[in-house]
Amino acid sequence: MPDDESHKAEMEALKAEQRRKITEARDPGRGLVLVHTGDGKGKSSSAFGVIIRALGWGHSVGVVQFIKGDWPTGEKQFFDKLGGQVTWRTMGEGFTWDTQNLARDTKTAEAALAAAAEMLASGAHDLVVLDEINIALQFGFLTVPAVLAALEGRAQRTSVILTGRNAKPEIMEMADLVTEMREVKHPFQAGIKAQRGIDF
Amino acid sequence: MPDDESHKAEMEALKAEQRRKITEARDPGRGLVLVHTGDGKGKSSSAFGVIIRALGWGHSVGVVQFIKGDWPTGEKQFFDKLGGQVTWRTMGEGFTWDTQNLARDTKTAEAALAAAAEMLASGAHDLVVLDEINIALQFGFLTVPAVLAALEGRAQRTSVILTGRNAKPEIMEMADLVTEMREVKHPFQAGIKAQRGIDF
Repeated sequence: MPDDESHKAEMEALKAEQRRKITEARDPGRGLVLVHTGDGKGKSSSAFGVIIRALGWGHSVGVVQFIKGDWPTGEKQFFDKLGGQVTWRTMGEGFTWDTQNLARDTKTAEAALAAAAEMLASGAHDLVVLDEINIALQFGFLTVPAVLAALEGRAQRTSVILTGRNAKPEIMEMADLVTEMREVKHPFQAGIKAQRGIDF
Repeated sequence: MPDDESHKAEMEALKAEQRRKITEARDPGRGLVLVHTGDGKGKSSSAFGVIIRALGWGHSVGVVQFIKGDWPTGEKQFFDKLGGQVTWRTMGEGFTWDTQNLARDTKTAEAALAAAAEMLASGAHDLVVLDEINIALQFGFLTVPAVLAALEGRAQRTSVILTGRNAKPEIMEMADLVTEMREVKHPFQAGIKAQRGIDF
């Protein structure tokens, strides 16, 4: 363990550095674009955590789910009970390996993007989450220009979170924040079942 | 865009693989240990998202915050309004570069760990979040054996999430899941201020 004096000196230096960064930081004057990607867990759940933050400040939130179908999840049940603070649209029909129909998946994703674009442009929300939209892009159900247009058409106040693995480079390029959730160790890989209240 | 037939074949193969993994997976018969670490955003917010999932299924949740002090955050305000579904204990006194007092920080962290150990052993919770406990370990306010003992002493039903950068190898070793949130691009690094409803 470091001694008191050296600890204090180290913390003073850290504090000065933090203060400098905070002083220099500016308000962007517009909502941010955030991307949660990578092969690890936490992309969607982290977006739900940010929703909680936003709601705590009385913000208005919209969610469009691009892939997940209408089966029961903890998050859906929780936000349903909350009532009108969150506008939640489950537009997906399930995993693409279940539908196995490219034309149908494309149509579904395009309808979800239309709903998302409307939500983004409306100015009604401080935060809009486009859950698993990166998957729809990865499988070619949506085009990058169509998604970029929806993002650029958002109201000034509206921040957006895009989730899903394999985010497109053009999306990451225009984003303010990109986090890669990297899988270091996963229970499913160790043969442990998905757990209610943890995984869904 | 792939044609319909090759898409269908690819999705059928993917589905068979998923089904095989799901069939082989077993229920662990005990709560899991999850670690969210790395230098990127989403470690705590992802834990809050898992809390939402757990609450959606009617689970009971406890939170101990090891570092964050009692300033207003969106998550705190949100969970306060929820009422008794979440037992929330803010035990920290703020960033360690603000307190600049090793003895005091150590005492604070030890009190937080005692509260956490009690919560874990009580059997009252399906999920317990030890927010930023990895930071307390990193700065030497807590020892690895003391934290491992608290984890091992948890009730069988209780899952735990430990958050914070620089997770200790011994903790990752005993964990069922480890996700590294890797910073690819961060608004603060680009000189953009922390945003209410996004960052806190």
